[in-house]
Amino acid sequence: MYGGYWGKVLRVNLTNKTYKVEPLSEKVAKDFIGGAGVGIKYLYDEVPAGTDPLSPENKLIFATGPLTGTRTPSTSRLALATKSPLTGIVCLSLSGGHFPVEFKNTGHDVLIIEGKSEEPVYLYIKDDQVEFRPADKLWGTTTHDCEHLIKTWLNDHNIRVASIGPAAENMSKIASIMNDRNRAFGRRGTGTVMASKNLKAIAVKGTKKVSIASEDAFKEVHAKMLKAFKEAPGLYPALGQHGTSSVIEILWGLGACPAKNFSATGEWNPVPGLGIATLSAKKIGKEPCYGCPVACTQVRLVKEGRYKGTVSPPEYETVFALGAQCGIDNVDAIIYGDRLCNELGLDSISTGVTIGFAMELYERGIITKEDTGGLELKFGNEEAMLELIRQMAYREGFGAVLADGSKAAAEKIGRGAEKYAMIIKGIEMPGYDPRALKTHGFSFATTYTGADHNKGYASQDVFGSPVPEPVDRLDPKGKGRITKWNQDAKAACCDAAVMCNFVFDAHYMPGPLEHMAELFNAVCGYDFTAEDVMKVGERINNIARAFNVREGISRKDDTFPERILKEPLKEGGSKGSYIPPEHLDMMLDEYYEARGWNKNGIPTEEKLRELGLEYVAEDLKKLGCL
Amino acid sequence: MYGGYWGKVLRVNLTNKTYKVEPLSEKVAKDFIGGAGVGIKYLYDEVPAGTDPLSPENKLIFATGPLTGTRTPSTSRLALATKSPLTGIVCLSLSGGHFPVEFKNTGHDVLIIEGKSEEPVYLYIKDDQVEFRPADKLWGTTTHDCEHLIKTWLNDHNIRVASIGPAAENMSKIASIMNDRNRAFGRRGTGTVMASKNLKAIAVKGTKKVSIASEDAFKEVHAKMLKAFKEAPGLYPALGQHGTSSVIEILWGLGACPAKNFSATGEWNPVPGLGIATLSAKKIGKEPCYGCPVACTQVRLVKEGRYKGTVSPPEYETVFALGAQCGIDNVDAIIYGDRLCNELGLDSISTGVTIGFAMELYERGIITKEDTGGLELKFGNEEAMLELIRQMAYREGFGAVLADGSKAAAEKIGRGAEKYAMIIKGIEMPGYDPRALKTHGFSFATTYTGADHNKGYASQDVFGSPVPEPVDRLDPKGKGRITKWNQDAKAACCDAAVMCNFVFDAHYMPGPLEHMAELFNAVCGYDFTAEDVMKVGERINNIARAFNVREGISRKDDTFPERILKEPLKEGGSKGSYIPPEHLDMMLDEYYEARGWNKNGIPTEEKLRELGLEYVAEDLKKLGCL
Repeated sequence: MYGGYWGKVLRVNLTNKTYKVEPLSEKVAKDFIGGAGVGIKYLYDEVPAGTDPLSPENKLIFATGPLTGTRTPSTSRLALATKSPLTGIVCLSLSGGHFPVEFKNTGHDVLIIEGKSEEPVYLYIKDDQVEFRPADKLWGTTTHDCEHLIKTWLNDHNIRVASIGPAAENMSKIASIMNDRNRAFGRRGTGTVMASKNLKAIAVKGTKKVSIASEDAFKEVHAKMLKAFKEAPGLYPALGQHGTSSVIEILWGLGACPAKNFSATGEWNPVPGLGIATLSAKKIGKEPCYGCPVACTQVRLVKEGRYKGTVSPPEYETVFALGAQCGIDNVDAIIYGDRLCNELGLDSISTGVTIGFAMELYERGIITKEDTGGLELKFGNEEAMLELIRQMAYREGFGAVLADGSKAAAEKIGRGAEKYAMIIKGIEMPGYDPRALKTHGFSFATTYTGADHNKGYASQDVFGSPVPEPVDRLDPKGKGRITKWNQDAKAACCDAAVMCNFVFDAHYMPGPLEHMAELFNAVCGYDFTAEDVMKVGERINNIARAFNVREGISRKDDTFPERILKEPLKEGGSKGSYIPPEHLDMMLDEYYEARGWNKNGIPTEEKLRELGLEYVAEDLKKLGCL
Repeated sequence: MYGGYWGKVLRVNLTNKTYKVEPLSEKVAKDFIGGAGVGIKYLYDEVPAGTDPLSPENKLIFATGPLTGTRTPSTSRLALATKSPLTGIVCLSLSGGHFPVEFKNTGHDVLIIEGKSEEPVYLYIKDDQVEFRPADKLWGTTTHDCEHLIKTWLNDHNIRVASIGPAAENMSKIASIMNDRNRAFGRRGTGTVMASKNLKAIAVKGTKKVSIASEDAFKEVHAKMLKAFKEAPGLYPALGQHGTSSVIEILWGLGACPAKNFSATGEWNPVPGLGIATLSAKKIGKEPCYGCPVACTQVRLVKEGRYKGTVSPPEYETVFALGAQCGIDNVDAIIYGDRLCNELGLDSISTGVTIGFAMELYERGIITKEDTGGLELKFGNEEAMLELIRQMAYREGFGAVLADGSKAAAEKIGRGAEKYAMIIKGIEMPGYDPRALKTHGFSFATTYTGADHNKGYASQDVFGSPVPEPVDRLDPKGKGRITKWNQDAKAACCDAAVMCNFVFDAHYMPGPLEHMAELFNAVCGYDFTAEDVMKVGERINNIARAFNVREGISRKDDTFPERILKEPLKEGGSKGSYIPPEHLDMMLDEYYEARGWNKNGIPTEEKLRELGLEYVAEDLKKLGCL
């Protein structure tokens, strides 16, 4: 037992329809904390190099953190580690809502799903009991309906459900797992892996409560947190009131919100249609995660026009991807598109970025109506965007070409299309232009999942955070060290803890690592220092990199699409900025040095040993990577 | 206290935002049992003649029955009495699901909602507590989303919700109140009345349990019922497996399923597309009412084609109205249309029958594309049908002409259109052709709500039931007496009890009234005989008729659309049959005589006094009706 930690791993085998509970070793718990750390550690150990991500040998490894289920605010999050069918490397996704705490309250910390069921099934985990239930009848339902039907059939609407939709069933490689209706284990094809196992849904009902190692210590740090919450500058006025979309106008000011397939940052924005005022006018309420006092998720309703009656809570990234990226500034169409993505189980970032990519190809004449099945695929055509979402989920028409994301689409299309695909390591870039935010952007190029806005979010670039030190967002120098700090701090404090990124960012500065160490110590009975916490983050980033290195990743992959390397931003708050290859080289050299990796971006034996990952070093040596 | 009866009336005033609890008098409870009986009694007493149905003076009177909340199967039903904005007379609707028992478990039997809130609100009834909560943010949401958001915001998804959708908000006079997603207080504009009061929804959470007067007596009759259930011929094989749609092929055999605005019974059917085999292929599960072992509601999923991914449980009446009536035999389009009606809060029978009516007008050239806004409104055009559902809910385009049902549409269109409107007392006829089923059809013409398939369902016609005696469904003779029996028995045993029609029909024969008397006695501590039960039914039908007489209803209104009176059925199992006016006259004479009403269809003073309704007789005398 580790204080709040049950220390229990539920291992479910879909092939044999069996399950067992294993202890989570104290060493793994201390070395990796939980969440992303524990998930990736199991992934590294149990999914060997070369595994087909859509084979029964791939695993879905869900892991809560030690803080989940305690009174620590904003910790109803669950990490999912698997091998991505989109990128072929580590997939680490985090979802919030109520599902994570409900799962934790079944008395388990980790859920490992392995094998493949012969026929569609769903899991029902009720405290210690695991049932394999037929899901053939549910196959074909949207995520919202699937959730409703399972609750109805189990006769308890307070059960929490994670499920896949038609997109995953049709093996789209950008399909998500959705929980609590609108929460996503997004990006990288998490839903596709679940579909490959014939697993339609996971329903959970937990009645247990976690305990805490030291209630007194916890009370003290908890009170400190709540005070810091109230005083946090960005948390309530911004995130609480406007949600993640509060970042839009900040990014406009910085010339950092990409538009029209990253071709028009500054030129196209700001467009009032996507601004806070327009979004606020659609807000009807919130849909918070369990136990979160911020409640950033803003439910929006379309009140007039062709999409009226539609309810959905699009996040900033969806507003970017289905909106700016596609040259669309009608928020109503974006709300409708968000609803479609959530019900069909498509990742809205990859979906929107891929459609925007296709729009540029169309505008350049690289594809024509003959390719698109008659769709006039110009930037700004919201009907085409919405039609393509449906087509992508069902692999119909031109949607079949786009269904697996930009990289696969570029390969199918040929004709030099790949030049315009805004991807890093095979995954679509989120809505921050690296040319305008070089710390944040550099993390896209180096983090272990491929382009990702949450692994190492650079608050220094976006919000001017002075922790650990202020940066010049347009200067390529010094980015390696800061990026390492961001990636390690977030890996430990957010992705492993598990705690919401926003809360950590907005509240824990200054002194975030000290606070987190106190929290872990209170809950788990550890004696962590701030340095120990950072060390866990570093360990996570190293074992994840090692997983990727085993799959062939090296310096050559830590890069940007051609546009970022060659095209200066034309207008706006970062006009003229770009990241020429020689700057990237310098940044990589700095980063690898800060990380203790070699010039080719491979963790050194020395670094791995320092982190207690001797066996990983042995693996890499055997493979000839070291 | 009346055994299982709490005997509590919760009276809520929306104008003042106040509420109080009143006792339900023992006399009212015994004279009217509950449900429809108690509801109509209050309606008669509290909503005077000439009240504008959409004014604050109209009331929504919800009433459970004494059996609701006991272990008696299939009694999670709730009656709603109000004055209909569609017909101007009694509106009595019943809904099932889980909402009724949940409401009963708050410790109330009856809910009377009066007045009008200045701003949109919803009610939250949690046991003894009533909260008036703002609903301005919910205005504009679909019924499904409204239900989800309320549960989310009250943080308990086991709360049950009844709500209105956009159709009611736009004051469509055929708008329903929906509960538990797909259950409807259907027909007659229940939702419109709720909208006129600015009441978006009612949420209920009850933790109380009803008691029973004599557990021993209840156990005995309960065991008898369960045995009878198992042996009931139609219940499990038919209703349990296929739901209400099991009636389709029976009606085809009888030439009794209307098609193409009742112009083509026999000619058009049977169409395999609407048959049991097609419907069964779409079935994915059930969505039963609370405590119902039959579970007739069949959830269906569209698996292929343009509507794929749609989930909805269309009942027979919807299959008729959106299908046969509109000449459409694509079940997928019907499932999609059913989903639209449920989410938008439109009554699917009135919606489909009105669209079919407009289709006949279009085919006859009475209306053209100039009227329809370009819609090619031919029978069989499923796209037009689906587009019109949306337009009707939002009062857009030609939908604005149809939004208040067939009668209002005929008035707006003029040009002799009313001749083709398939309405009785202003309300659209359900899917049973009176020419083929003269007992059942005659009840349409005489029952107190206007055309209604549930008030006096004639199992004798449809299933050959020998209770109280077998009938010749095509012979106009003897229909008056049987219709009285059907209407009185159903009013007491189903609508007042409250118990599901199907269960009563399929299971209680022979000896249904004796069984019901035993049940009431066990639960309420009464000493009812079968004759007493029938007397309650008769009392309900008389006070309801008196309400309507006060509003101007008499013999002239107990009639059929011209088509039923003049056009013999062209083909099929009832070929050549119709109900010429002289037959109708004979049937009415018989019926009024059986009822003890005068030749003009007005209850006599003698009859009213016999039923203990002296004050009603006085009212009618004062109005000059007697």
